[in-house]
Amino acid sequence: MNIAGNLLIGQHARRGTHGVTYAIDAASGERMEPAFGGATVVDLDEACALAWAAFDVYRETSPDARARFLEAIAANILALGDVLVERCVAESGLPRARVEGERGRTVGQLRMFAGVVRAGDYLEVRIDPAQPARQPAPRPDLRLRHIGLGPVAVFGASNFPLAFSVAGGDTASALAAGCPVIVKAHSAHPGTSELVGMAVQQAVKDCGMPEGTFSLLFGSGREIGQGLVRDRRIKAVGFTGSRNAGTDLIAIANARPEPIPVYAEMSSINPVLLFPHALEQRGDAIAHAFVQSLTLGAGQFCTNPGLIFAVEGPALDRFITTAAERLAQAPAATMLTPGIHQAFERAVTAFAEHPQVRTIARANAPTGANQGQGALFSTSADAFRETRALHEEIFGAASLIVRCPDLKTMRLLIESLEGQLTTAIHIDEADYADVRTFLPALERRAGRVLVNGFGTGVEVAHAMVHGGPYPSTADGRSTSVGSLAIRRFLRPVSYQDMPDALLPDALRTSNPWALNRLLDGKLTLAK
Amino acid sequence: MNIAGNLLIGQHARRGTHGVTYAIDAASGERMEPAFGGATVVDLDEACALAWAAFDVYRETSPDARARFLEAIAANILALGDVLVERCVAESGLPRARVEGERGRTVGQLRMFAGVVRAGDYLEVRIDPAQPARQPAPRPDLRLRHIGLGPVAVFGASNFPLAFSVAGGDTASALAAGCPVIVKAHSAHPGTSELVGMAVQQAVKDCGMPEGTFSLLFGSGREIGQGLVRDRRIKAVGFTGSRNAGTDLIAIANARPEPIPVYAEMSSINPVLLFPHALEQRGDAIAHAFVQSLTLGAGQFCTNPGLIFAVEGPALDRFITTAAERLAQAPAATMLTPGIHQAFERAVTAFAEHPQVRTIARANAPTGANQGQGALFSTSADAFRETRALHEEIFGAASLIVRCPDLKTMRLLIESLEGQLTTAIHIDEADYADVRTFLPALERRAGRVLVNGFGTGVEVAHAMVHGGPYPSTADGRSTSVGSLAIRRFLRPVSYQDMPDALLPDALRTSNPWALNRLLDGKLTLAK
Repeated sequence: MNIAGNLLIGQHARRGTHGVTYAIDAASGERMEPAFGGATVVDLDEACALAWAAFDVYRETSPDARARFLEAIAANILALGDVLVERCVAESGLPRARVEGERGRTVGQLRMFAGVVRAGDYLEVRIDPAQPARQPAPRPDLRLRHIGLGPVAVFGASNFPLAFSVAGGDTASALAAGCPVIVKAHSAHPGTSELVGMAVQQAVKDCGMPEGTFSLLFGSGREIGQGLVRDRRIKAVGFTGSRNAGTDLIAIANARPEPIPVYAEMSSINPVLLFPHALEQRGDAIAHAFVQSLTLGAGQFCTNPGLIFAVEGPALDRFITTAAERLAQAPAATMLTPGIHQAFERAVTAFAEHPQVRTIARANAPTGANQGQGALFSTSADAFRETRALHEEIFGAASLIVRCPDLKTMRLLIESLEGQLTTAIHIDEADYADVRTFLPALERRAGRVLVNGFGTGVEVAHAMVHGGPYPSTADGRSTSVGSLAIRRFLRPVSYQDMPDALLPDALRTSNPWALNRLLDGKLTLAK
Repeated sequence: MNIAGNLLIGQHARRGTHGVTYAIDAASGERMEPAFGGATVVDLDEACALAWAAFDVYRETSPDARARFLEAIAANILALGDVLVERCVAESGLPRARVEGERGRTVGQLRMFAGVVRAGDYLEVRIDPAQPARQPAPRPDLRLRHIGLGPVAVFGASNFPLAFSVAGGDTASALAAGCPVIVKAHSAHPGTSELVGMAVQQAVKDCGMPEGTFSLLFGSGREIGQGLVRDRRIKAVGFTGSRNAGTDLIAIANARPEPIPVYAEMSSINPVLLFPHALEQRGDAIAHAFVQSLTLGAGQFCTNPGLIFAVEGPALDRFITTAAERLAQAPAATMLTPGIHQAFERAVTAFAEHPQVRTIARANAPTGANQGQGALFSTSADAFRETRALHEEIFGAASLIVRCPDLKTMRLLIESLEGQLTTAIHIDEADYADVRTFLPALERRAGRVLVNGFGTGVEVAHAMVHGGPYPSTADGRSTSVGSLAIRRFLRPVSYQDMPDALLPDALRTSNPWALNRLLDGKLTLAK
């Protein structure tokens, strides 16, 4: 398959006629061929009409058919081979090993959701059998299943060109839930997007899914992105990106005649708490691991450790010295786009110039275009409390150490934080008593609490939560990574006294799909 | 316990100082003693501060302690005896049998949630054990549970003074989820609210729950109701009421620095579809059942059948004749408040005066104050399609029959409807082929699809969905009736590599709460 610069609308591929954009080679800053044509509102309307037409058919596909479709997407992505990897490396500036790892993750997610679809627990079937003799009134037969919300608009993320873009986590979970998907490609990796889009398009065809199950649009965020969110046929949105773009989409979704959920992952500084005994005993090792996490992928992770809390003293001084030495040896790293690089430099400069902030270390100077130079800062607890700007995310390898006079102050500062994707604590057994007083606040503030590690490296698992209170995500009741992500795109429907002949297969008494069910309130395994 | 007109703030009872209101005897229109003092912003702040202080403790209560608390509330409500029933009858104008039945439902809901808390499935525990030897990187230990969102503001509903007010479904499910509750009492039944509030307050004390687990405020919707939704310590809202009031609360919640979910149940006309064979075979019986459902509780149900679709012809003519005769014999019935009665009369008059609407029947004329006189109208498919005003809910015993030229037109009209709580189909086996072409649209439009019945009578069950696409509810991904309602007030939290000594009981490897768990993706029963 070759990159042609085409929109993929259902089974069609055609050049958009609304403006032209090019990919930029992140490492060189140079324009890459071919040109990509932007979608018009007519293209948008066609994609939405196809998705709407596909919805009722697609959502009733059998578990096996839908699972095979997801597996076919995974196989087709792998079949793209080096063409995909090389294009993705060029467009993102990410190292080849990272891109190959991310491809593995993407394929793994699709296969995991195939397993979720086959297992069928996500349908959460509940059956309360009729009790015709009940007094004072008979009880009807009630059966509940979950169905897809409808067509979903997915926005590709700049920092995961594979795992959170065209066939990434949002798309995989929405398709698994029975929702057609229209992807608005991210302008940072259009070639990668088209290649993966063709892989999905081919799977739709090969698996006999309705044409509108998938479309891919290129175009401006304002016209095509916001236009998708406004379209009455779109019933949910998956988005990863900046807080400004996310809140704009949420406002549009809320202003619709029928508001829809926007699952926006927006910003998180992922506080790391160093407890006294761990810091004393293992400060050097933690500092090494911290700088490794900080600089991974040029710091371009939603879970990057942007904030460190610790109590002042010699142990913290040693930690800072070690971290500073380590960071000073780290190379500058190519960032995803010139825009992201510029925003990083602006934010780092603002921190560096802040009178209450001390620059502890910078990574090595850049040796090429768009290279971000890691930065480590420190500040006092008072300054952090009083300066909201220091609570804001710097997207890239920058982190702020907050020197606290004591644990009590640290706990108060935790309560001042906005919602976070993750929070990490570094602890030894001797810290447990103190940790217990922190855990309630940490749970309230973050979707994932992790011990003696860092938030980067988000395991695709059943027990993963990648989602936290606002503004880390727009809806802290959900996760965008892991099998529970499917729930975002589902709603429950109850069927009362429906004859077996009319019931969907999932709800038939004979249980043809061998589903685990809640029978009269009791969880009952099929086998 | 005596009605004193007091606010209940934690364990305190005191007269509000911000204005005075009285209950109105619905049947006579007369003022009832005592006076109720409205809450000030200081009262509101105190209730929120107490709720916030209670949250971390209350949400970690053991399953048995929390279940016993819910059961104590139920027992205390029953112990109020006739004082509660008589006051509720007077304030609501509802018949004694209905109030007693509703009390049973309220107590049953609390006990059901006690069972849900003890079973613990709502925690949805997931454990993915560590794989230290995995390549290329070890897998961490991940454990997921759900925790409460935080303090919940509950708005009492006028039409369910017991089952959806102070200790109704929203309160019961929020308390079950581990969330403290602050109730804004509905002005239609303040005495009922205070009595039930005292029952909850007493249970908080007797069960040793933290003081702020429950508070009850009287006051204006604008100041106290909206003030609650604005307060940073409130993390979710349960509301049943008008579309205007609901959308106001949603707008306030969305404009907060940290937006919060509002579970608002707002309006539904609950379309009923009469299929040709059923109408031909059983039209008379359906007409009788329809009028009974229509006039039940003076039609003041969210699930009242406000819209009938059928194909024109002699069978529909007979149905209309029978329904008209039946309704003409129905007595007028006392409505909940003078305001609700006036709104009903205005809406019925507007329908009656509409040039495309024919008045088929009215119930008997009123014999007392605030009595609503049921109304049955008909219109054409064309008029219905072109007139959005005919899609709006009339709260009370009014229904509109839409005469369709054929089933195809009927199906198109279904697609033009807004989201609904319920939709009912009346069918015989000979209708099944036609029904199948309707089901996808019905599922998309409603939270519950019921066969050969009417939506009134919402079973409190595990498989119930009382919640549908906007605007029937603000969030069609949820239900406000049945055990699944607990999910509205929960969010997932993941714990990574947390030592067993620090894990919450629900997540310990030894499974001390004997929970069913998803282990490595496989649903595993505790026993």
